[in-house]
Amino acid sequence: MTRNIRIIPDYPSLLSLPQETISQSYDILILPGGGPGAKTFCATREILELINEFRKAGKWVATICAATTALVAAHKQFGGEKGRVTSHPSVKEEVEEGGWEYSEERIVVDGKLITSRGPGTAMLFALTIVELLGGKEKRDEVQGPMVTAESL
Amino acid sequence: MTRNIRIIPDYPSLLSLPQETISQSYDILILPGGGPGAKTFCATREILELINEFRKAGKWVATICAATTALVAAHKQFGGEKGRVTSHPSVKEEVEEGGWEYSEERIVVDGKLITSRGPGTAMLFALTIVELLGGKEKRDEVQGPMVTAESL
Repeated sequence: MTRNIRIIPDYPSLLSLPQETISQSYDILILPGGGPGAKTFCATREILELINEFRKAGKWVATICAATTALVAAHKQFGGEKGRVTSHPSVKEEVEEGGWEYSEERIVVDGKLITSRGPGTAMLFALTIVELLGGKEKRDEVQGPMVTAESL
Repeated sequence: MTRNIRIIPDYPSLLSLPQETISQSYDILILPGGGPGAKTFCATREILELINEFRKAGKWVATICAATTALVAAHKQFGGEKGRVTSHPSVKEEVEEGGWEYSEERIVVDGKLITSRGPGTAMLFALTIVELLGGKEKRDEVQGPMVTAESL
């Protein structure tokens, strides 16, 4: 724990709850990047169900890097609306093959979907999430002392 | 371990070696940021000695965020040359009081000293270290797939 922020990797006990309870209890589902991790997301039924539950509940779903493929995989299985998204360039084809509108912007917000591209866009991704959930003032408060580049 | 990079937090066994052995075995000493961590660096004799050993041996020393204060503290104790550096804005005065030339650039390389400013400059800091130790080609190879901003 640092700066009074407690980060709990609570995957097993979280997934023991009913999916509906999870999507009602949390504001956002954030899927981090990494090729092998994204492959695991796509192959894990509980994760795809969770994405579907959050989307159905009208909650935020955010993916970065290769994790956007999990959004595509969840949609293949459960349907729902597609949106405009981005991802790591290496999985662009996989996302497009799923029929999603592809953008090469560094961050894309479409409805309740937030998607981004890679390690170099992670700061922008994180700050955008802070702004969408906590407001511009909160974003400025967090971003100021971080000495970010003028253009993220 | 991911992508065949093994990261070992080996602080206790490392510090059991003679300081000279350490500075001869490693190319660079990198001190990460964070206010409380930097205060601990400054209050830990072994760390200040290690900084001094690396500098005496002509090896790279890199500090980011508040960690530049440890560079200043080591110099106060052991002397040596001062250089042009940067740090997190919150510890600018502390660095200047030590008599070091202060820059507000996001990354400063002066001789064998590499200094940077905060979480928002961490990517630039890391890639600069890769370039200085591994060459421009290696930096490009690492940076390309990361989808970094045009101006870091």
